[in-house]
Amino acid sequence: MTTNRQVILAEKPEGVPTPENFALRQAPLPETPKGGVLCRTRFLSLDPYMRSQIAGRHPSGTVAPGEVMRGETVGEVMESNSTELPVGRLVRCMGGWQEYSAHAAGEAQLLDEAITPPSHALSILGMTGLTAYAGMVWQAGVREGECVLIPAVTGAVGSAAAQFCALRGARVIGIAGSQAKCRFARESLGVEACINRHTEDIGARLGELCPSGIDVYFDLIGGSLLQTACAHLADHGRIVLCGLMAEYNRSVREPGPPPGLLIAKRAVVSGLVVYDYEDRREEYIRECLPLLNAGKIHQREDISQGLESAPDAFCHLMLGKNFGKVVVAL
Amino acid sequence: MTTNRQVILAEKPEGVPTPENFALRQAPLPETPKGGVLCRTRFLSLDPYMRSQIAGRHPSGTVAPGEVMRGETVGEVMESNSTELPVGRLVRCMGGWQEYSAHAAGEAQLLDEAITPPSHALSILGMTGLTAYAGMVWQAGVREGECVLIPAVTGAVGSAAAQFCALRGARVIGIAGSQAKCRFARESLGVEACINRHTEDIGARLGELCPSGIDVYFDLIGGSLLQTACAHLADHGRIVLCGLMAEYNRSVREPGPPPGLLIAKRAVVSGLVVYDYEDRREEYIRECLPLLNAGKIHQREDISQGLESAPDAFCHLMLGKNFGKVVVAL
Repeated sequence: MTTNRQVILAEKPEGVPTPENFALRQAPLPETPKGGVLCRTRFLSLDPYMRSQIAGRHPSGTVAPGEVMRGETVGEVMESNSTELPVGRLVRCMGGWQEYSAHAAGEAQLLDEAITPPSHALSILGMTGLTAYAGMVWQAGVREGECVLIPAVTGAVGSAAAQFCALRGARVIGIAGSQAKCRFARESLGVEACINRHTEDIGARLGELCPSGIDVYFDLIGGSLLQTACAHLADHGRIVLCGLMAEYNRSVREPGPPPGLLIAKRAVVSGLVVYDYEDRREEYIRECLPLLNAGKIHQREDISQGLESAPDAFCHLMLGKNFGKVVVAL
Repeated sequence: MTTNRQVILAEKPEGVPTPENFALRQAPLPETPKGGVLCRTRFLSLDPYMRSQIAGRHPSGTVAPGEVMRGETVGEVMESNSTELPVGRLVRCMGGWQEYSAHAAGEAQLLDEAITPPSHALSILGMTGLTAYAGMVWQAGVREGECVLIPAVTGAVGSAAAQFCALRGARVIGIAGSQAKCRFARESLGVEACINRHTEDIGARLGELCPSGIDVYFDLIGGSLLQTACAHLADHGRIVLCGLMAEYNRSVREPGPPPGLLIAKRAVVSGLVVYDYEDRREEYIRECLPLLNAGKIHQREDISQGLESAPDAFCHLMLGKNFGKVVVAL
């Protein structure tokens, strides 16, 4: 416990990142701040927004070459100068891609012991679950009987969104990247039909599956799929813009749907940034935890072992090869 | 009173329409339908959406070569088979570009005699006023102190929108096509500053005038101005998409703002079609008529005389050369 292993950004990737863009290094253990804590990382969340941080296009800030990769973590308190955060308890914090992290007062939140496994604090009961709930329930207001289209439906946000919509009585159409993912979506996520984006014509399938149009599209992707979804939108349909998976690995920003189409559909398009809902996190957990405990919601996690697995796991995520929420267990 | 002069579409224009795209013709007087009325047109409204009808891109239907141009009119009842629509009263109807029109029961609405001059039923108290009110008050919910950007601010919809926003205590920034229009906007429409789109750099001026960003953009234009407005949008800003003046004369549809920008701004973009608010027209008139009578709202009308002036007036409108709501008096 005298050194701290870290994963840094070695060089800024062009296009899809590869493990060679990252490097392991040893650093001294950080000091425990006055009123704060020193944590040992137990779980690290890997998320697509990190590609934007590398590219310098994310509102939360930029990760430059030579810097430790950032990320949300569940850590165990090893040393504490805070009576509210006792040694041995788990906390949620922005620990980053490293074994140890130090946090000032207010920068680490005690984990509710009802959250088990603790990795759920990074997935269904964490930022990705909150994103899904804020987008579909609070922002889009999905109602019974509506047709909802969710891409990347077995991913972290998509799988939570699909289940919240299905529980509200919506017809959920999913999109995923393999037959196995499509089957999982139908069997475990309440998805009525799932389109394989590699083997099916998405526009044609949407025409068959949603002849009256899509009421809500949860856009985690951007790119041409946004245009396709928009063309199949029902009158007064809503689009929640949340992610740009199709663009994270590219340097050029694609334009959005033509305004004439949005007028004709009387569409409502709104941008979602989950940080805006931070003050409703506890409310969300109170809604979701009973559903999770009752087995009405499932969270598939794609867990890799050891800090050194993080670069590989992240590169898999950026290729859409993950199957569930990507978490690194340390 | 034995023949009916009409303006027909002679040929479909490419690009900006010219008077040669239209032709005058004589037709027999239509018969008065059972339960309906025969009207003599007193005022004809000319509006940009007619360019879309010619192009076959408007939800209300297409005008093909050889057909009479459509449009909303104020007509005087000449013959009546309806006790509710007596001879001599004025009605609002879709009379089109012609001297006489016949309407079945329910297709002509008796004009409130409080609406004077009657041309106001086609402008501030008609579809364009309703569009402005629905967009800014009902859909965008403009509030005191907000910064609102309104293009084509001396036009029919823009001038009404500017005044409604100013009356609600918003800071209104206008855009117009001449110094005379900009001066009128500042002096008569409650506009704080007006940008001359021919002589000023709109993006640079917006940066100076709205350093905290635009809270509401009423998009009557589409094209590059939508992109510029979006780049200057405040966080949680709203864009109401209503018209595409920049595109009506073109065959290619331009894309909308990039989704990443809308996410970063937490923008809400919504399409407005005024027909959706038809059931609130009386509510609107009850709100607006007292303001108009009290001199708190003004309507500048750009009135041309005689049916034969309609093609010229419409072509002027499509070049942005009108100054106020375009109406033909017959």
